[in-house]
Amino acid sequence: MTDSAHLPDKYDRDLGRVPANYTALSPLTFLARAAAVYPAHTAYIHGPRRATYAEFYARCRRLASTLAARGVGRSDTVAIMAPNVPAMLEAHYGVPMAGAVLCALNVRLDPAAIAFILDHGEAKALLTDREFSLIVKEALKLAKVRPLVIDIDDPVYDGPGERLGQVEYEALLAEGDPAFPLTLPDDEWQAIALNYTSGTTGDPKGVVFHHRGAYLNSLGNVLVWSLPPRPVYLWTLPMFHCNGWCFTWGLSVVAGTHVCLRKTTAEAVYAAIAEHGVTHFCGAPVVLNMLSNAPPEARRAGGRTIEVMTAGSAPPAAVIAAMEKLGFHVTHVYGLTETYGPAVVCAWHGEWDALPADRRAALKARQGVAYPVLEGLMVADPETLEPRPADGQTLGEVMMRGNITMKGYLKNPRSTEAAFTGGWFHTGDLGVIHPDGYIELKDRSKDIIISGGENISTIEVEGVLYQHPAVLEAAVVARPDSTWGETPCAFVTLKQGCEATTDREIMEFCRKNMAHFKAPKTVVFGPLPKTSTGKIVKYALRERAAAL
Amino acid sequence: MTDSAHLPDKYDRDLGRVPANYTALSPLTFLARAAAVYPAHTAYIHGPRRATYAEFYARCRRLASTLAARGVGRSDTVAIMAPNVPAMLEAHYGVPMAGAVLCALNVRLDPAAIAFILDHGEAKALLTDREFSLIVKEALKLAKVRPLVIDIDDPVYDGPGERLGQVEYEALLAEGDPAFPLTLPDDEWQAIALNYTSGTTGDPKGVVFHHRGAYLNSLGNVLVWSLPPRPVYLWTLPMFHCNGWCFTWGLSVVAGTHVCLRKTTAEAVYAAIAEHGVTHFCGAPVVLNMLSNAPPEARRAGGRTIEVMTAGSAPPAAVIAAMEKLGFHVTHVYGLTETYGPAVVCAWHGEWDALPADRRAALKARQGVAYPVLEGLMVADPETLEPRPADGQTLGEVMMRGNITMKGYLKNPRSTEAAFTGGWFHTGDLGVIHPDGYIELKDRSKDIIISGGENISTIEVEGVLYQHPAVLEAAVVARPDSTWGETPCAFVTLKQGCEATTDREIMEFCRKNMAHFKAPKTVVFGPLPKTSTGKIVKYALRERAAAL
Repeated sequence: MTDSAHLPDKYDRDLGRVPANYTALSPLTFLARAAAVYPAHTAYIHGPRRATYAEFYARCRRLASTLAARGVGRSDTVAIMAPNVPAMLEAHYGVPMAGAVLCALNVRLDPAAIAFILDHGEAKALLTDREFSLIVKEALKLAKVRPLVIDIDDPVYDGPGERLGQVEYEALLAEGDPAFPLTLPDDEWQAIALNYTSGTTGDPKGVVFHHRGAYLNSLGNVLVWSLPPRPVYLWTLPMFHCNGWCFTWGLSVVAGTHVCLRKTTAEAVYAAIAEHGVTHFCGAPVVLNMLSNAPPEARRAGGRTIEVMTAGSAPPAAVIAAMEKLGFHVTHVYGLTETYGPAVVCAWHGEWDALPADRRAALKARQGVAYPVLEGLMVADPETLEPRPADGQTLGEVMMRGNITMKGYLKNPRSTEAAFTGGWFHTGDLGVIHPDGYIELKDRSKDIIISGGENISTIEVEGVLYQHPAVLEAAVVARPDSTWGETPCAFVTLKQGCEATTDREIMEFCRKNMAHFKAPKTVVFGPLPKTSTGKIVKYALRERAAAL
Repeated sequence: MTDSAHLPDKYDRDLGRVPANYTALSPLTFLARAAAVYPAHTAYIHGPRRATYAEFYARCRRLASTLAARGVGRSDTVAIMAPNVPAMLEAHYGVPMAGAVLCALNVRLDPAAIAFILDHGEAKALLTDREFSLIVKEALKLAKVRPLVIDIDDPVYDGPGERLGQVEYEALLAEGDPAFPLTLPDDEWQAIALNYTSGTTGDPKGVVFHHRGAYLNSLGNVLVWSLPPRPVYLWTLPMFHCNGWCFTWGLSVVAGTHVCLRKTTAEAVYAAIAEHGVTHFCGAPVVLNMLSNAPPEARRAGGRTIEVMTAGSAPPAAVIAAMEKLGFHVTHVYGLTETYGPAVVCAWHGEWDALPADRRAALKARQGVAYPVLEGLMVADPETLEPRPADGQTLGEVMMRGNITMKGYLKNPRSTEAAFTGGWFHTGDLGVIHPDGYIELKDRSKDIIISGGENISTIEVEGVLYQHPAVLEAAVVARPDSTWGETPCAFVTLKQGCEATTDREIMEFCRKNMAHFKAPKTVVFGPLPKTSTGKIVKYALRERAAAL
């Protein structure tokens, strides 16, 4: 049944693709439809600003028309350095409407990294929020490319920073055409976005998304979350993180309202929930932790159940349990930049509702099963690709295949080939597969600790640490050891009022709750270094541990 | 920005399709996933029988393996004549798993029509339920093809009928391989199903569906209906209608439970609702009418709101209002066989909830807006394709384009081209577009009669009438009917000397020569109104029929 052996037959003849029966899949069509069906519905809220779907769509078309007028077209890269503001949302539509590719920059990067990305992606235009002008100015000095610079001077922002370019975003839009025709790509394989991975080793890699994948993962998110019509979605997750896990586009499928937020704080989140009737948001476990540890008087969830999607690092069961106690319903997903964000979901079983809370949280802490739009997921031997037995024990590498794995790494065929070896995308994450087919991550391959020849999952040790009543945040890394090779070293932030807790107490708590060889041999107190997406920067901790 | 002008650039080079990042879209993947994630969940209920998703999937694979073993493969047609039973569901997966194309036959067709379809589709196998053995036996005598005949001898059925083939369905499955590997098509454009329209002129046309469209419309249905995880879906809609509007496949996306029903009666529907906790079903307005007119003691909806999707002919506002009063929540959709079933939905606006019931029902009686997976919908001039003004007044032809319009008509390039003229699929339905962008049908293509959800070609009925020795001239039009929506009404001029012929004689003659549901329910004698060129003026007859 291969194509090579197949000659055209009755089901092929005169039954080809024509304009009436084929359109390239593109998430741009979702916005066109939302604007047609719900023109008066609020598309976004940003401080005192609101835009309807009709206005939102018109603004995106204005942006596309002005970019096109300036010569930005197919396969040109348009970078953006901005927090979760309307211009960022609009860029997700306006840039690909011009045929171009959006490169949303991580706002925490340093000038050298930004310069590298601008050069590597060959940025032709750059939209930049005034808040980041200091870094961007420096980056532009370092970069070889000379992009058209468009300043975003957000009225909601009153902090320091200067304008760097010749034109401000609103002035640009004012000269645009609100009826600029929506042109879809000829080919759904055409690039829509470029997202650089942080790359702990060497230069960052540019992950290329295409229209087809962005369309499908948008639908995937709506499906696995059973997103209702017209939800109110709060932007706690940075949009520069895998295009906000494709929710920048996916919200248009259900004509949802985006609630923008320049900065994610517990107060701002609870205020948005109370004022705008937020129904859904996404966030890394660190955001959940922040919310569940906010002082009681700050919490204004208001009795409604709010849906939270979390990923980014395995959420400790204790954090999930605390969130659910506060009235948040947590959906746990897992994915990578290479899979358009989440591609795996801990799909719930009704019968699990009857289990005790800690057991429920433990089940939910597993990463789970493939999205309906991801065709393959397995835990396998990294070399032979032999699937691991579904015993919940045997460690292997998590691998995926299907329509929501990236097009590849930009200008990096060697890395692309390595990532796709054997017909599967190699995630670099280590995990097990349980008898019920659910996968559970045990560690990044580079994070795993090997002590006296035994593998120790840092995620498992962290899970125990989070159960200690005094622990606010915890991260475990390998510390070189002359006897054992490596030993677990814990970095811990204590809750307010718990500062008297000693390292000995923590270690003993761990030894009581897990195999002794897995318990930390060192505990260090203090704040944890984090990325902009709330991920704890483990390589920095490893350096610290090595220097102890 | 056309491909012809586009040379490969940085976003194309080394970023092509490979097994890790591309899979043909196919609804078969939904079942594989449902069986992996919810193996123990009930996939279907049929009388006392139940199957879990693991069992359902294994049975489909058994079917595929036995078909493959008998030489049924890519682009072979497998026909099925059955009511809404498990074998019908399983054929929707097992047949395409073997690479073949499913042709579900309308069980109300007469032997000649079935013989035509078997021959035209070149059926290589035929699954046939014992209930229809009389008709199928006759059809097989008339047909030129000699398909492998597989009897479905459903234990739930205890009526008359004989086995026609060499092997019974369960015996066939018993010899199959429950682990037969799931092979997806090489190309998502590959055919998955063949559905014959009744055809207003001459022979029925075979509408070809491909895997891509079936995948996308399955998702479209889940999206527009906000189908929750694991719904309980009742099969009132025949699965032979556009593959049950793609719900045969779509239910697997959400691991829903199919409740099978051989015959749709008000009692059976209410019993299923009470016994199985049905949450959703689809049905033509005639089904809704039946349910709302059932005697009060038969109604056992049990206080829950049940979601109903309706289409097939414009549901009278009164029927919608009556249903909602009974606790059914109606979603109105519209589509054609050529669009995989529903492709347009009357998407609801929250603010409409505050309107009076009759106004709400009138809004809901409109066909609405495009599905998220349908990229184009318009009401336009049939010749110039100029869109009609959105005034709710100006009549035009409804046209669609995008990924859920058919591949084309089998072995009928002339009809395919005509249907796709100008880059749009011409529905043949007349309607208007309202100022809010919602379309409303005003007339079906001018001759077709829709009776109980079935299309009846007036030309076909007229053809039979003309065979009666006493008939001089005949014209058939729709007569409004409170039960069936419409019934065929014949206007007949008798030959001289035949004035003694009665309406009863004419009707009986028709019933003998065609499917009973197509036979006229009313016969009126007298001269026919004609244009100067001798054409019968049907609209005048429709008015007369409505006034009877």
